[in-house]
Amino acid sequence: MSGSGGGDGGEPTAAEWLYGPRVVAEALRGKNRRVEEVWIEEGPASPAIDELAELAEGRGVAVRMVDSATFAGLQLADARRVAARCGPFRYADAGSIPSPTPGGCSLVVVLDHLEDPQNTGAILRTAEAVGCAGVFLPKRRAAQVTAAVVRASAGASEHLTVFRVGNLAQLVGQLQEAGYWIVALAGDGEQRWDEVDYRAHIALVVGSEGRGVQRLVGERCDHRVRLPMLGKVGALNASAAFAAVAYEVVRQQRG
Amino acid sequence: MSGSGGGDGGEPTAAEWLYGPRVVAEALRGKNRRVEEVWIEEGPASPAIDELAELAEGRGVAVRMVDSATFAGLQLADARRVAARCGPFRYADAGSIPSPTPGGCSLVVVLDHLEDPQNTGAILRTAEAVGCAGVFLPKRRAAQVTAAVVRASAGASEHLTVFRVGNLAQLVGQLQEAGYWIVALAGDGEQRWDEVDYRAHIALVVGSEGRGVQRLVGERCDHRVRLPMLGKVGALNASAAFAAVAYEVVRQQRG
Repeated sequence: MSGSGGGDGGEPTAAEWLYGPRVVAEALRGKNRRVEEVWIEEGPASPAIDELAELAEGRGVAVRMVDSATFAGLQLADARRVAARCGPFRYADAGSIPSPTPGGCSLVVVLDHLEDPQNTGAILRTAEAVGCAGVFLPKRRAAQVTAAVVRASAGASEHLTVFRVGNLAQLVGQLQEAGYWIVALAGDGEQRWDEVDYRAHIALVVGSEGRGVQRLVGERCDHRVRLPMLGKVGALNASAAFAAVAYEVVRQQRG
Repeated sequence: MSGSGGGDGGEPTAAEWLYGPRVVAEALRGKNRRVEEVWIEEGPASPAIDELAELAEGRGVAVRMVDSATFAGLQLADARRVAARCGPFRYADAGSIPSPTPGGCSLVVVLDHLEDPQNTGAILRTAEAVGCAGVFLPKRRAAQVTAAVVRASAGASEHLTVFRVGNLAQLVGQLQEAGYWIVALAGDGEQRWDEVDYRAHIALVVGSEGRGVQRLVGERCDHRVRLPMLGKVGALNASAAFAAVAYEVVRQQRG
């Protein structure tokens, strides 16, 4: 169902299938991959499907009507009659981190070895909604932008600028030099999330649920912020924590 | 794997199996159900498992060591050697909505026909973290507190006071009479989420991702708030939206 990079066989650029009307629409509208062909399963007339076919044709992407048996052969769960054969996700060049405009404010996100595709996708979705200028992922031991992540992001991944980096501690240094303030979300952070002045260029670092932000990264951060836990369980989901802090950034930056 | 209510057969109170060390620990610590018996799969020594067994014994709950074949017979995915046979989830009496103290502030949550157990569980987890005094669910056409929801909430469900109600529009009226301000999260809300004064008794209404807040409920709300969408996709996940607004409530109520 999903490979990565081009093979050397019959379909050199076919990297993965994305599926479901919403995800395929965002792949078509987005900037992050070539959509080779859209498959639509034959069936009753549907405005949503007509709209999608129009969108594909408007972008010069071939639409192929296939019978149910052929569509089922793709083995995609909950595709709702729409699938797209796509080229690989295009990551941004790690040498070109967004350069902040002096005096302005912005937000980028650093994901510190999140492995769960659901969490990663949910964070990408929120990151896109708050207008993040860039997302940084480690190249290894972390969820990449796979079909499962695209799906969990509701297709938002296709609009984001996503960088893959080898070393997060080094990245933090580069971001600081470029003019970013680095803020890590940490259960034991020294400051409350709303005590930091975010009217600047901010890089939010989100750790994995199990291990949090790694030590070498946490030590270099300018702020480590916590969300108050007022119940008995004492831990939030990583994507919920990110949403809470990201909208505090939006509140301050656009207030 | 999970039934609801007591059957009339051999095990009258056995309603469902919860599993995984974290969820079982919260069921033991929580107030929402009777834990009948904890099953632990035999295996290498583990401090986490020892701690769980101690917790169970401290609460007078029998711990049964079972071999791998017996444990596998439960057919629980990712149980990590721990399962618990539990009585049904205890909902709170819908006639006893939390009465707000005059002059104080608090938060309750109304889930308007959310059907996805992942979303419902994620919202319950955040609701518990922000100290919600109560959560209201419709009795029909909505996810109830099933094993899947408990799991998605990381066990937080076991500490919350959860009410089941027949009619949400009626509930909104009751909450208003009791002294709550009703705030609905809506993509087309008239106010920004941070323009409302939350230093009061607040009931946040969260709609389903597909249909949002139902008309009869939305019309009775005191405020309808939106989160700014600064990207191209234009919609947040319900649990991310809830986290963002819930922490704005916390910020104002405890600022």
